[in-house]
Amino acid sequence: MYSFDLIKKDAGCDARLGLIHTTHGEVHTPAFMPVGTQGTVKSLTPEVIHTQRVEMILANTYHLYLRPGHDLIARMGGLHRFTNWSGPILTDSGGFQVYSLATLRKLSDDGVTFQSHIDGSSHFLTPELAIAVQETLGSDIMMCLDECPPYPSSRSRMEAAVNRTTQWAKRSRLAKRITGNALFGIVQGGIYPDLRKHSIELLLETDFDGYALGGLSVGEPTDEMLAVVSASVPDLPEKLPRYLMGVGTPDDIVQCVSRGIDMFDCVIPTRCARNGLLFTNQEKVVIKHARYREDDRPIDILCDCYTCKNFSRAYLRHLFIAGEILAMILNTIHNVRFYMSLMERIRDAIAKDAYGDFMAEWMSYNKGII
Amino acid sequence: MYSFDLIKKDAGCDARLGLIHTTHGEVHTPAFMPVGTQGTVKSLTPEVIHTQRVEMILANTYHLYLRPGHDLIARMGGLHRFTNWSGPILTDSGGFQVYSLATLRKLSDDGVTFQSHIDGSSHFLTPELAIAVQETLGSDIMMCLDECPPYPSSRSRMEAAVNRTTQWAKRSRLAKRITGNALFGIVQGGIYPDLRKHSIELLLETDFDGYALGGLSVGEPTDEMLAVVSASVPDLPEKLPRYLMGVGTPDDIVQCVSRGIDMFDCVIPTRCARNGLLFTNQEKVVIKHARYREDDRPIDILCDCYTCKNFSRAYLRHLFIAGEILAMILNTIHNVRFYMSLMERIRDAIAKDAYGDFMAEWMSYNKGII
Repeated sequence: MYSFDLIKKDAGCDARLGLIHTTHGEVHTPAFMPVGTQGTVKSLTPEVIHTQRVEMILANTYHLYLRPGHDLIARMGGLHRFTNWSGPILTDSGGFQVYSLATLRKLSDDGVTFQSHIDGSSHFLTPELAIAVQETLGSDIMMCLDECPPYPSSRSRMEAAVNRTTQWAKRSRLAKRITGNALFGIVQGGIYPDLRKHSIELLLETDFDGYALGGLSVGEPTDEMLAVVSASVPDLPEKLPRYLMGVGTPDDIVQCVSRGIDMFDCVIPTRCARNGLLFTNQEKVVIKHARYREDDRPIDILCDCYTCKNFSRAYLRHLFIAGEILAMILNTIHNVRFYMSLMERIRDAIAKDAYGDFMAEWMSYNKGII
Repeated sequence: MYSFDLIKKDAGCDARLGLIHTTHGEVHTPAFMPVGTQGTVKSLTPEVIHTQRVEMILANTYHLYLRPGHDLIARMGGLHRFTNWSGPILTDSGGFQVYSLATLRKLSDDGVTFQSHIDGSSHFLTPELAIAVQETLGSDIMMCLDECPPYPSSRSRMEAAVNRTTQWAKRSRLAKRITGNALFGIVQGGIYPDLRKHSIELLLETDFDGYALGGLSVGEPTDEMLAVVSASVPDLPEKLPRYLMGVGTPDDIVQCVSRGIDMFDCVIPTRCARNGLLFTNQEKVVIKHARYREDDRPIDILCDCYTCKNFSRAYLRHLFIAGEILAMILNTIHNVRFYMSLMERIRDAIAKDAYGDFMAEWMSYNKGII
């Protein structure tokens, strides 16, 4: 049964500690969710994901709806059983991928028509279908279908998107059939603070289990993103979780936690890993660089992951240059663990009412890690 | 310190049980070695390889010599430490890859000149260099550089190769500097039984720690391969291990064990896994086939591997079709474990003097698994 406990606020800023309860387990917030697009966090077994102390993953409704199909997954026992991931799963609505991956989109108040990026087949996604697909998958936290215009978009375009998103949010709430899981509403409004405020007011007319900020980290400068977060969070219900969708870098996360965000997801740790960009507490490691050719040190001497405990930068460089699959596996293990470790340190700092100091230190040492 | 114990022979055929001792651990024979070409068994961490109960892996001298270079590996503490594989490693001489992968080869009695398949750089591989590279890597079992003509080759071409292989074997033995590890000689002679006999006679003039049959499974019909094995093994020293290089399918292995072979290596389990061909005790599973679309069963109900204990054919099919790295990982875990389990059953049958029955049953049920 889904619920959220707000455990405490940091004494010096808006950072919060919380605990999400789901039928598949608990999630400590602030939380980061690695992205498992097609029913797998790329290159990791569920066992390895657990070992990195990941508590919740995100799955993409758009991808799973198209392939292998939500009905097939349901017949195989639902997404948890199908993928053998026993922890909580948050699913997006599919909307963001329709806007970014699919072609020949046609939006109406009813929903969005699109062509699959896989085989060109035509589909019609409505708020009701997005909920039905997520319920069929067995999602622990579902998201409403929203309209997410590209950046930059005009104020009038964004205003229309806010209104449509509100209507779709109401329809999503009515479409929800299953109890025990959660449904989050999504705030839109681009980089216009007053539209964000308006979007929140409209969304609050409907009861949701949490609220997400959508349409950020889509190309706008970081300062604009931070300004929107700062302007929006105070209007969100204090007792409910706040989820900043698709964000971000370690620096983004550290700064948005201080503004009261509880949940994050992003492909950065996994995608960067596959491309050989590794996060550390000291420096940015582009593993293919010649300077690591005979570097016998682990990626990060402070990291407790399997990769850092067992392999040198020289070996990881060799694997990456040789195009070995093991490079992607070991790199992903490290980056995911780096993010998880960051979230652990963040929660630790909040518990001690020391988040301000933590953030100041982080930003002075780590600014520009990516 | 390397040694080999011949534990027993099956009462009804030439199958043998043995135990190889190396400074990095023991290997029960008949043994199968997965291939770790570039310092990694593709898509598996060393931890996972151990979990499949692999005892020894093969590493390719040609690849590691070219990239990242044996000297670099030595400076990183040797191949075991570099790759974090703590078990025994057998290295080939590099010859086979020079003949099959490199270009502009020029053979002389001194050695072979070739151009790297990676960057076109020119190299000269001699028997002495092949030993030096393997010793630098820290190999537990080294192989002599041999000449391995393609199939088919004329009798006179093959005779010349036998003579050169013998000379190179003598030079390899003299070049060996390190004690405690092993050096195997390689029998050539193609599909000509009398040339094989001659090659063995010549090789036996030099002391080796084991003998390999090379130049098989290079395109000749299986019956020819089996005939060569049958004709050659009786001439090999009974107290030393016999290694059939590059073989093979499960059927090949089962049949060659009955002829007295103790060691095998092959890319089949790992390469087939990456291509979606999975071995089972019942049938051949080409995982992309539509018939597995909603197949909730594991690959092999009798298999004890992580993949079979946790994932359905339907999920594995989805991962494979979606091009996910996890498909390669899970498929490889299964195929490697299938081979290891086959070797365990083979050793079990020999221990009970029941290898003939085991082979008869295997061949009647499993003929044509690949």
